[in-house]
Amino acid sequence: MMKFSARFEGRFPHVIVVGGGFAGLELVRQFKNQPFEVTLIDKQNFHTFQPLLYQLASGGIGPDGIAYPLRKIVGVIPNIRFRMAEVQSVDLVQKCVKTNVGTFPYDYLILATGAATHFFGNKAIEAQAFGLKSIQDALALRSSILLRFEKAINASSKDERLSHLHFVVVGGGPTGVETAGALIEMKQHVLPVDYRELDASEMKVTLIEASPRILAAMSPTSSERARLDLEQMGVEVKLGVAVQSYQSGVIRLSDGENLKAETLIWSAGVKGAFPEGLDASLVGKSNRLMVNRYLQLQSHHDVWVVGDVALVVGDEQYPNGHPMVAPVAVQQAKIAAFNIKSQANGKPLRAFKYRDNGSMATIGRHKAVMEAMGFKLSGILAWLGWMFLHLMLLVGFRNRLIVFINWMWNYFSYQRAIRLITRQDVFTGQNQKSAYQNENQ
Amino acid sequence: MMKFSARFEGRFPHVIVVGGGFAGLELVRQFKNQPFEVTLIDKQNFHTFQPLLYQLASGGIGPDGIAYPLRKIVGVIPNIRFRMAEVQSVDLVQKCVKTNVGTFPYDYLILATGAATHFFGNKAIEAQAFGLKSIQDALALRSSILLRFEKAINASSKDERLSHLHFVVVGGGPTGVETAGALIEMKQHVLPVDYRELDASEMKVTLIEASPRILAAMSPTSSERARLDLEQMGVEVKLGVAVQSYQSGVIRLSDGENLKAETLIWSAGVKGAFPEGLDASLVGKSNRLMVNRYLQLQSHHDVWVVGDVALVVGDEQYPNGHPMVAPVAVQQAKIAAFNIKSQANGKPLRAFKYRDNGSMATIGRHKAVMEAMGFKLSGILAWLGWMFLHLMLLVGFRNRLIVFINWMWNYFSYQRAIRLITRQDVFTGQNQKSAYQNENQ
Repeated sequence: MMKFSARFEGRFPHVIVVGGGFAGLELVRQFKNQPFEVTLIDKQNFHTFQPLLYQLASGGIGPDGIAYPLRKIVGVIPNIRFRMAEVQSVDLVQKCVKTNVGTFPYDYLILATGAATHFFGNKAIEAQAFGLKSIQDALALRSSILLRFEKAINASSKDERLSHLHFVVVGGGPTGVETAGALIEMKQHVLPVDYRELDASEMKVTLIEASPRILAAMSPTSSERARLDLEQMGVEVKLGVAVQSYQSGVIRLSDGENLKAETLIWSAGVKGAFPEGLDASLVGKSNRLMVNRYLQLQSHHDVWVVGDVALVVGDEQYPNGHPMVAPVAVQQAKIAAFNIKSQANGKPLRAFKYRDNGSMATIGRHKAVMEAMGFKLSGILAWLGWMFLHLMLLVGFRNRLIVFINWMWNYFSYQRAIRLITRQDVFTGQNQKSAYQNENQ
Repeated sequence: MMKFSARFEGRFPHVIVVGGGFAGLELVRQFKNQPFEVTLIDKQNFHTFQPLLYQLASGGIGPDGIAYPLRKIVGVIPNIRFRMAEVQSVDLVQKCVKTNVGTFPYDYLILATGAATHFFGNKAIEAQAFGLKSIQDALALRSSILLRFEKAINASSKDERLSHLHFVVVGGGPTGVETAGALIEMKQHVLPVDYRELDASEMKVTLIEASPRILAAMSPTSSERARLDLEQMGVEVKLGVAVQSYQSGVIRLSDGENLKAETLIWSAGVKGAFPEGLDASLVGKSNRLMVNRYLQLQSHHDVWVVGDVALVVGDEQYPNGHPMVAPVAVQQAKIAAFNIKSQANGKPLRAFKYRDNGSMATIGRHKAVMEAMGFKLSGILAWLGWMFLHLMLLVGFRNRLIVFINWMWNYFSYQRAIRLITRQDVFTGQNQKSAYQNENQ
């Protein structure tokens, strides 16, 4: 085994990985103890397990179950170091990455910078709606949901009260479906116990999807099953309508209907997120960076792009790009690592081909849909399978244990134990929060 | 058993309890199913177990172990309701409490509003130092400590690096001692694993106490034992010196010495915290409200004050007031509840007499001091006793379980698992945070 010193010596090619998401973690695994010096850069000091953010927002689990310190992973690997830094720009000509803590030159650059909530240019919605892409987003939403219940008690009219108790989720993908399900379970199990002063039947959850069905990545059978489950639990599902505007607590829909709601959760779209300094000619659909089938930028074969931010050009099976999900990110990370090692050794590269292992979404207690290897599953078995797979995908035994205990607790008590309002300051929506962060950093 | 409706009907005297700390929770217990209608008011929606805030700040446990939703306690009690509200003022003549969600009239008022960090008028220190009185304080400190490590890596000089790695704790009470111990354990077990790039020996923890010994509430033997334990672990303990100023990262001490440190943690004093509208003649030493031995305001026998904010006048054993600790708060809550019930029924009141069950502080792994019923204990037995008692005092089985699991995990892994920087925005100190909260609420 090779020996590496704590400080890099430049004996080996320097690989910079930007982003500690699913792809970033897989890259760490692939480069561990290999003849490369690797710098992992992320603006947070932890990996976020995004698929469970909705449970953080609804008080089912705490941040410590789904966030994992990146240094805990990287700390013990001699040839990999971590830098908590905000990447300001990438210079493809000088081959360096500029960050708020200094400039890092690279031999190989891998962008695994993920995706951000896509508001399709609607600034008013962006300023007021909640996204669900980060721990901070989810904590802000948790505080806001619970504050709405408090405000409903003190409302001066029934109209105002109903508006506080109406939660509108936009986007019928897995995140939207799971969030709507979690909210309606709060109506069933939290509201009647914690808020005797309120009439729980006044709480309302609406799920809005612009296309004709939810969970469009799954079969029509699973979509229909999920819709029926949601409706049976009390969610109003509106299909084939889009949100046009959100002004003074009124959501205007494309079919002319107006919904009054103080809370709008936006899971209707994501777009690639990447640093400045990359030419517009590199950017394709959904703001993703276009790469060849080896996952390289066409113009710069020392730059690799993986995960949500990558748009593979020339894969006829996925002409609009691969789905922005963890399995794609992990599989691409493996190929990118393999190809960088091959390129360094003058060996042939391998093209990326996505192996789709299926898809799933949980709806509520004993309710989920799952499709894998040609099988369709729903109900309690799919629900148990969903939980098992998510536990296994969490990073580290401690986090699995903590999430498992919370799930058991929630299951048997019917509660969401962590209903804490820790962020009174951010309840008005994510944009106020961002504005503050920008000012004060 | 009496029947109460969800909305109060005024059939029974209305008791308002302001504050959901240790005293507030005991009052809830004492008034449960009694012929009173009780409104519990707190500006947070959860009870905070303050004795373990230092472990939240050092990443050993998460907020969900030591914060407990107040509605989870009050929700099932028919004659008690909760209102999350900021009390703006108290009107002793009109007998009402004005809050940001409305005005509440009372028959009996109990102020259990606790204490706030006392900076003794030093605005510069207040603006830059961290207190440890709330979940938000502790989360801000956790993020700041971890950010200092990150900044140390990127420091441009040794001087700057040492300043990032120097943590100064002011105040040698249990909070200061426990915080200093937790910080030095991060030096021993977290820094060498997570931050290979740093020389762990450059991290420094200094504990400053103005009086001649730490843990002044305990015997000189225990004080000395704690000091020796801290020094053996690597903490520099400075006795008999006070902090005079804190400017541009330099702490000036009363003996003329200057310490360079980017982090100042202030546990040197607390003062009573209470709403406006109370005459200055009611306020005594340490900003506490003066009460008679029945715990009533002298001038208004329908107003009761308990816990940290109460200053009992006429107890010759405690001429400077009782210690600001949980056992005093709980015992006073019992007496206040008893006396209100007696007064309502025309029966004689009972004077408060503090039964001191002892005192303890933990220093680090296998290290603690404990004094109870004439016994002095230190080392591993005191440490186990400290953990057992704190687990028992936590509210709810779930929180005990979560804290217990985290403690076991930390013990066997030597780690502080929850080293997450979730609040980059507040790392510059608590006052910037408060300013922001005031602006945005």
